[in-house]
Amino acid sequence: MSEIGIGIVGGGYMGKAHSVAMAAVGAVFDTGLRPRLEMIAASSEDSAERYRRSFGFRRGTGDWRQLVDDPDVQAIVIATPQALHRDITEAAFARGKPVMCEKPMGASLADSEAMVAAAEASGAANMVAYNYIRTPASQFARDLIADGEIGTVTWFRGEHTEDFYADPSAPASWRTSGEANGTMGDLAPHMINAALALIGPVTSLIAEVETVHSERPGGKVDNDDQAQIMCRFANGAMGQMHFSRIATGRKMGYAYEVHGTRGAIRFDQEDQNALWLYRADGPEAERGFRKILTGPEHPDYLPFCQGPGHGTGYQDQIIIEARDFLRAIETGESVWPTFRDGLAVNRVVHAAMTSSRGKCWQDVPTDPSN
Amino acid sequence: MSEIGIGIVGGGYMGKAHSVAMAAVGAVFDTGLRPRLEMIAASSEDSAERYRRSFGFRRGTGDWRQLVDDPDVQAIVIATPQALHRDITEAAFARGKPVMCEKPMGASLADSEAMVAAAEASGAANMVAYNYIRTPASQFARDLIADGEIGTVTWFRGEHTEDFYADPSAPASWRTSGEANGTMGDLAPHMINAALALIGPVTSLIAEVETVHSERPGGKVDNDDQAQIMCRFANGAMGQMHFSRIATGRKMGYAYEVHGTRGAIRFDQEDQNALWLYRADGPEAERGFRKILTGPEHPDYLPFCQGPGHGTGYQDQIIIEARDFLRAIETGESVWPTFRDGLAVNRVVHAAMTSSRGKCWQDVPTDPSN
Amino acid sequence: MSEIGIGIVGGGYMGKAHSVAMAAVGAVFDTGLRPRLEMIAASSEDSAERYRRSFGFRRGTGDWRQLVDDPDVQAIVIATPQALHRDITEAAFARGKPVMCEKPMGASLADSEAMVAAAEASGAANMVAYNYIRTPASQFARDLIADGEIGTVTWFRGEHTEDFYADPSAPASWRTSGEANGTMGDLAPHMINAALALIGPVTSLIAEVETVHSERPGGKVDNDDQAQIMCRFANGAMGQMHFSRIATGRKMGYAYEVHGTRGAIRFDQEDQNALWLYRADGPEAERGFRKILTGPEHPDYLPFCQGPGHGTGYQDQIIIEARDFLRAIETGESVWPTFRDGLAVNRVVHAAMTSSRGKCWQDVPTDPSN
Amino acid sequence: MSEIGIGIVGGGYMGKAHSVAMAAVGAVFDTGLRPRLEMIAASSEDSAERYRRSFGFRRGTGDWRQLVDDPDVQAIVIATPQALHRDITEAAFARGKPVMCEKPMGASLADSEAMVAAAEASGAANMVAYNYIRTPASQFARDLIADGEIGTVTWFRGEHTEDFYADPSAPASWRTSGEANGTMGDLAPHMINAALALIGPVTSLIAEVETVHSERPGGKVDNDDQAQIMCRFANGAMGQMHFSRIATGRKMGYAYEVHGTRGAIRFDQEDQNALWLYRADGPEAERGFRKILTGPEHPDYLPFCQGPGHGTGYQDQIIIEARDFLRAIETGESVWPTFRDGLAVNRVVHAAMTSSRGKCWQDVPTDPSN
Repeated sequence: MSEIGIGIVGGGYMGKAHSVAMAAVGAVFDTGLRPRLEMIAASSEDSAERYRRSFGFRRGTGDWRQLVDDPDVQAIVIATPQALHRDITEAAFARGKPVMCEKPMGASLADSEAMVAAAEASGAANMVAYNYIRTPASQFARDLIADGEIGTVTWFRGEHTEDFYADPSAPASWRTSGEANGTMGDLAPHMINAALALIGPVTSLIAEVETVHSERPGGKVDNDDQAQIMCRFANGAMGQMHFSRIATGRKMGYAYEVHGTRGAIRFDQEDQNALWLYRADGPEAERGFRKILTGPEHPDYLPFCQGPGHGTGYQDQIIIEARDFLRAIETGESVWPTFRDGLAVNRVVHAAMTSSRGKCWQDVPTDPSN
Repeated sequence: MSEIGIGIVGGGYMGKAHSVAMAAVGAVFDTGLRPRLEMIAASSEDSAERYRRSFGFRRGTGDWRQLVDDPDVQAIVIATPQALHRDITEAAFARGKPVMCEKPMGASLADSEAMVAAAEASGAANMVAYNYIRTPASQFARDLIADGEIGTVTWFRGEHTEDFYADPSAPASWRTSGEANGTMGDLAPHMINAALALIGPVTSLIAEVETVHSERPGGKVDNDDQAQIMCRFANGAMGQMHFSRIATGRKMGYAYEVHGTRGAIRFDQEDQNALWLYRADGPEAERGFRKILTGPEHPDYLPFCQGPGHGTGYQDQIIIEARDFLRAIETGESVWPTFRDGLAVNRVVHAAMTSSRGKCWQDVPTDPSN
Repeated sequence: MSEIGIGIVGGGYMGKAHSVAMAAVGAVFDTGLRPRLEMIAASSEDSAERYRRSFGFRRGTGDWRQLVDDPDVQAIVIATPQALHRDITEAAFARGKPVMCEKPMGASLADSEAMVAAAEASGAANMVAYNYIRTPASQFARDLIADGEIGTVTWFRGEHTEDFYADPSAPASWRTSGEANGTMGDLAPHMINAALALIGPVTSLIAEVETVHSERPGGKVDNDDQAQIMCRFANGAMGQMHFSRIATGRKMGYAYEVHGTRGAIRFDQEDQNALWLYRADGPEAERGFRKILTGPEHPDYLPFCQGPGHGTGYQDQIIIEARDFLRAIETGESVWPTFRDGLAVNRVVHAAMTSSRGKCWQDVPTDPSN
Repeated sequence: MSEIGIGIVGGGYMGKAHSVAMAAVGAVFDTGLRPRLEMIAASSEDSAERYRRSFGFRRGTGDWRQLVDDPDVQAIVIATPQALHRDITEAAFARGKPVMCEKPMGASLADSEAMVAAAEASGAANMVAYNYIRTPASQFARDLIADGEIGTVTWFRGEHTEDFYADPSAPASWRTSGEANGTMGDLAPHMINAALALIGPVTSLIAEVETVHSERPGGKVDNDDQAQIMCRFANGAMGQMHFSRIATGRKMGYAYEVHGTRGAIRFDQEDQNALWLYRADGPEAERGFRKILTGPEHPDYLPFCQGPGHGTGYQDQIIIEARDFLRAIETGESVWPTFRDGLAVNRVVHAAMTSSRGKCWQDVPTDPSN
């Protein structure tokens, strides 16, 4: 067991989550590498100092370059707005430092591609922080599908729906400006990442992306409120997706359904500790979707609690993520989803935006090395 | 109160359901017209006699023309395979007799159009038997949306999914042959009818229709297993639909979600006595989807039971339908969905099939008189 | 197949339900005996005539004795207030006519005992109309338990809770007067009957029965609002029950949970088409309560619908009941629950009332012939 | 902000949970006092060293007295078997050190009473670690009831049910020996604590406590498998409870239902991020239990996540608990539930055991100072 100095860039929503995760992960998972909260960078010295005190870092800085350069910062977590992802990443990899970057990587497809190149050139551990797929339930769903437990997959439906902009009188903000902050930029990548993880590559799609409320108090809206996709997976399965920030009543509608020839799976993040499994076996009269409560039998649950059904939460996903990043650093082998995996998500998003503009089916370039 | 002689053509699944409904409807709804089970027609004299005895009709016949011609048969319910719908309908209307026809009307769009023409030329009451939309819950959903209770609708998702052909080793049968018996022909019309009823006309769509298991024990399959649609409604809302007979685990997956600017609705026919309503009002901390159990306060529930939450079932939907048909006959005014309304459903199905072949968005002709 | 003349005494809530059931049952179940709605009796000639027309009976009468005496009335359904149950029953059995009597039989334990004596002396078919236990789901639950599918039963929890008197300002009425109309008299028997059917005889109990709102607009309340029971079954299992008419939010809270050494069952009548089954077998990671939707594989479902998950409702329970009564008449063998079975329920209620007054455990006399 | 040296006695299930909580709580809640993981005590030097390394403590010890005496240990968390609770507590309070003790305090009622005396004599902050009641959902339920949002409470039903001993062939262990490890000793206190928190003091009760499987592979069982209670609360409400470790299928069945004159609440820890609320207001047709997902509007949620419905888990409850303990230390004012509050729980348990032996209603002594 040895210590590792962690630097986190950004102290907002996700910066805090990663800070807590780094404080807790050692005790939870008995990790080989033990994080030391070395430095936090923010947009000003003042805010950096505030985050430093609040989250328990040794040092703070208003200049992320200082953090990247600091010899006691041995691994970096990027939790800034997307515009900065590429620069920070490239600087870090130039110094050979491992990076975990918040989704969805670059501010543009070109940025993301550059980030993959930088990561692979450096050889350092790299990871994109898709947290939801790391619940014990979704990890178990992946295993079940990969092991053929529901047979051949014939259908996938996924959604990522929330309602924080459902009210048309909610004022414009930074969230209503810029493609990266729209529904396709901000929410869709989570579910697309899940689709790729659960079913495999998407080969073609057609999408419809729209801004429903184009004017809000305080200004015009220039990014999308909701979108949908019809798609085809490499394994032949048909897929359907929906993304929305105006889905009235939905708070964390990260949900999917998978039909296979011998079973089916349903999951809704709003009840993240349950996975619904249907098996087309046994007497017909006794078949039904079973509500499986996650427990010590499921991936990454036991370190949080010995009792089944006792439940993990949002913060725990980030702790699992931290464990994976530490493991990648320790072993020198990047853990899924790597930057290259993250790029695959971005390509689907890009194809969807293109498709929506042209109102046509679109092929999605797949990565020969994937 | 006066009696009316009912003739039912077809004694299978739906023929029986309509027979029971006609036997029960008078006592349930205290109808002005009281059905007398006058005659049932089947494909042979033997089967007709069997149905007659079993369902309690006065007479049976192996020839539907005899039923249509019989002077004591004053109203006709068609529950045959779709290939016969047009002929029977035209014969009935030629004699000025009211007709309730099983969905989805004609075996082709041309047949359906001819049936509408015949119905309107005759002036007789005409109705298409879409039963699921008649649950108290779905009727209430229609009312809520029409009354603006959830604000402006921005999103609709509907599905009609079952799993009777999910097992690839289930043998070929009449169900796996002929477009009318495929998923788009047989299941999709129910949910498309719901979409039109809840949200309004569909103006354009793109669809993907596919046969997943093209060979089954006993023969080739020439109709579709599953399909999906992206669409736009006349009121601007975006829509998404899915239809399947291979949706492992789904038994009666007639389900929809509607997002509005001030609320949302969710319904799943597998729990047909509950409607989920979200209202974006009151304190944020107390908001949530409420599970409303149908009861005497909801449309057409009270005649079945005075107690809320006591529940109605499949057969009750057919009884409500029978009441509507009798009312239409009595008042001389056809009740929704008329043949013209049924045609609108068929046009959406037709556009979807066309779209899937061309892989392009398709306009759906709307009826100026609708 | 032959006709049988049915006489129903009472045209209110349950009188109507039985009338509809008798009109529909023949076609639904293809019964050997086919009911003819011969005569309905009510408290006045006027109301009897109104019911006659509305429900489709041949004749009506303001005097139930006339109905009992009529030679064309060959079987009798009693749906009057409980005060009349004994007199009508005794008159009917004196003429050797089969009787189906609404629960919970007599207005007192003595009345119920006399009714059992009369029934058994006559040898005519006799049945108590406990409808809820006849859903396909609850019949299936009985089968599962009886077949040992959940192992040895260790625990039973049951409730019958509604909220029609939850509002303290709801006015006094006939329902708030007389023990028979209180919660123990009116609601509890349903769930006690279920407990006996699912688990077996109750041998001892302690109860707490109370009137929460003893004054209501319009008068004093002299019967109970809610009650609870702790009990022991003959097979050693422990049990817990709760009954309430002031259970705010509960509409049809007829619900039970059964724990066995190898599985468990959960049911709630508010979603009467689902039975929840847990099996303690297979991999731990895949265990969970499965939601089984009733379908053709379950008892008495298929005659209502060929499709699973399509659902039966309240009225269908009464139709199943009618089928059982007709079968009992046809075979000459009474069908569960007979009057003697009904008496067993009443004895539990009686013991509970006694226990509550004395605040002590009470033995429940069991019937040697049961 | 200042540091405080934390000593934890015990490194098993709960010792780990408290260790993680102390590592994370500062960053989560931006606490005034910041825990330093100073020392962990275990039953041997070896295990203490193992825990020290794994959880990140500075020092470990095989002797809890050393921990209590250490000047750098300023606050103590007790997570040992109950037999040690009293001794450690008394030693700690003798040194004026604040104590958070795992539930249910002492190994006997006398021990618990002595612990209360010691706590109150010392004046140091004291708290019993009832974690489940600290979910945002249950805290919100407390608020709703306390604020009269559901009117006058008329009924409470609570259960704490799990199934870790449902299988009769599960071998005997430390858990099957000693009253403190039985269901009444180990599980019941959680739900009794909830009952007291939600509804108020219990004044009388009758209980039934039993060992269902008295022999297991490896030995006899001398403590209870399941139990139930009927009770009366000081405010007049009736209550019903059930506790079980043999509740097949239940994993974390900490669940309650509360009926009030104007609303109702339902909660089940197996879906700990949802609270079900029914309000008897608004149009009857729109009433139903609403599923409220916890979010930033609910107590103690926001520090874990800004998004509603994103969910907290088991470990987060312990973090909330840690925050409360630190706040108590900082302000010098003990936070609910204090040792005195914990004693009230133990008195209910004690009365239940007495009642079960005598099979009689039992008064529960309430604390004049409570």
